[in-house]
Amino acid sequence: MRIAIDAMGGDHAPKSTVEGALAAAKEWNDIEIILVGDQGQLEPLLKGTETPTNLRILHAAEVIEADDEPVRAVRRKKDASMVVAGRLVREGEAEAMISAGNTGALMTTGLLVVGRMNGIERPALAPMIPTVDERGVLALDLGANMDAKPEHLAQYALMGSIYREKVHGIHKPRVGLLNVGTEEMKGNELTKAAYPLIEQLPVHFVGNVEARDILTGACDVLVCDGFAGNILLKSLEGTAGTIFSILKQEFSKSLKNKLAAALLMPSLHGLKKTLDYKEHGGAPLLGLSGLVVKGHGSSDGEAIKNAVRQARVAIQSRLTESIAQEIIGKRVVE
Amino acid sequence: MRIAIDAMGGDHAPKSTVEGALAAAKEWNDIEIILVGDQGQLEPLLKGTETPTNLRILHAAEVIEADDEPVRAVRRKKDASMVVAGRLVREGEAEAMISAGNTGALMTTGLLVVGRMNGIERPALAPMIPTVDERGVLALDLGANMDAKPEHLAQYALMGSIYREKVHGIHKPRVGLLNVGTEEMKGNELTKAAYPLIEQLPVHFVGNVEARDILTGACDVLVCDGFAGNILLKSLEGTAGTIFSILKQEFSKSLKNKLAAALLMPSLHGLKKTLDYKEHGGAPLLGLSGLVVKGHGSSDGEAIKNAVRQARVAIQSRLTESIAQEIIGKRVVE
Repeated sequence: MRIAIDAMGGDHAPKSTVEGALAAAKEWNDIEIILVGDQGQLEPLLKGTETPTNLRILHAAEVIEADDEPVRAVRRKKDASMVVAGRLVREGEAEAMISAGNTGALMTTGLLVVGRMNGIERPALAPMIPTVDERGVLALDLGANMDAKPEHLAQYALMGSIYREKVHGIHKPRVGLLNVGTEEMKGNELTKAAYPLIEQLPVHFVGNVEARDILTGACDVLVCDGFAGNILLKSLEGTAGTIFSILKQEFSKSLKNKLAAALLMPSLHGLKKTLDYKEHGGAPLLGLSGLVVKGHGSSDGEAIKNAVRQARVAIQSRLTESIAQEIIGKRVVE
Repeated sequence: MRIAIDAMGGDHAPKSTVEGALAAAKEWNDIEIILVGDQGQLEPLLKGTETPTNLRILHAAEVIEADDEPVRAVRRKKDASMVVAGRLVREGEAEAMISAGNTGALMTTGLLVVGRMNGIERPALAPMIPTVDERGVLALDLGANMDAKPEHLAQYALMGSIYREKVHGIHKPRVGLLNVGTEEMKGNELTKAAYPLIEQLPVHFVGNVEARDILTGACDVLVCDGFAGNILLKSLEGTAGTIFSILKQEFSKSLKNKLAAALLMPSLHGLKKTLDYKEHGGAPLLGLSGLVVKGHGSSDGEAIKNAVRQARVAIQSRLTESIAQEIIGKRVVE
């Protein structure tokens, strides 16, 4: 199993990517890691440690920056670490690639360099949203495409279900459709048309799910268009963040409050950690001809290692092949 | 000023509506309240108190129940309290109506009985979403129409801005468009097309607003389609509710926690109250030929009285006429 890592992508790269790659290569000897990036920067970071034999550097001279315009950057910077990693996947030199770099550029790399899977019109970005039962929910699409057609939502349902089963080992993952009410006929034109399509799929469809029930774990896979998904995720993040910051303010208002809050800190920290979406690993881009995992921009070495873990399980469980088989089986669209 | 109250609508009706009507009639002698409902039930509730001269009962034999199918109920139950109240507004016998009954039926009553304002294609439901700075944000549309066209969003922007100015006395209310990013070109097809339309309106447009910034008060009027608005509101509600219920659990886990939590209770209650959308009054249905205010289903007498206060200010400030003037001025569509 060969996994390419965009060594230059992410706020803390290349330190984070080198650390993560080293740790992963040491832990799993059934994988081979290709660190793609500027040799001049990467080699010094590897010095002093014994480089595992299953880790190698592939030089790439250019870097896509966080503020680069995605499509233009991917088209022009043909020797950027992200683009080179994508090319390794397209050419079969690697089964998966990981990047914590520019999200838009990574989605463009997925589409233009790695390429769509046969039969998939719109690949989807599928991060985990934290839930209080700590199972989390895989939500897709979350940002790859703002507008969606009913057939796209159906493909998201199928891909998400296969991912949860293969990568997270969940038996018959519960697939929900993000909607304004739980009754079948609720919703806008998009969700009303998508509902019967998802119903016909070989997935465990639990019907419509309301935004207020996501956090308590109403489903394992949440299907939505990129716009609604963004509103959902940012509301959750924003509300939790705002509440915690107000509590912090309130709890330090007086000596009495400070003392009381100190006693409750373990509980508060536990909850805050549960609701921290950064803890929940990389987000796969599903529907491409190979696996692409997007790490959070602020990924540290540990997060990169976790993304490798995720990619490894996905490759072992033949995720991409399973999705291709279902899609080509024409069960979803014509 | 005559204000009709659907005396039979709401979980606690008719007790709540009679109490609210009495309190309002006593407080404001420049209004006349028409309590529309079953005389046999209403009269006993008024007994023992001195009925103010500016309060009278109008008998209506039927009631629209919470689980009635909205359109059918409004069409068939021509003598339902809600429908009769709507007819008073249409016929100019009242300037406003208030109901805490079946939301779908009230929107149908607005459309079919009261009637749309000339030039308005889609009336909008505009509740207040609580914010931590306690100004709140008027969000529309929140549930009257699931799908919207760019022109509808522009009309929402105009109506919401006039409402905030007239009823809440906010000078140049900040109008924001709910979106996935703050840059002008962000969004789905709907928001991208709506942006330039809102830009041309005589409102203080602050551009796109992200879901995570709503709670901290990024704008005074939030424009969105009914689907996205529902996702937003229910995420806020769900997240806040979930966090509070987990804190409650955690804080009663041990004696130590209980004691500490007791000291922090005032702070916690204050925050919870700030974020309780039920505290924030009735929601106007904007874009009708007269004013319709939807009270929360669980409204008590105090909430009904507050809805009357809101309707009174709206009538005094000539809200409906101001909206009509702007819309007919053709500044929005054509």
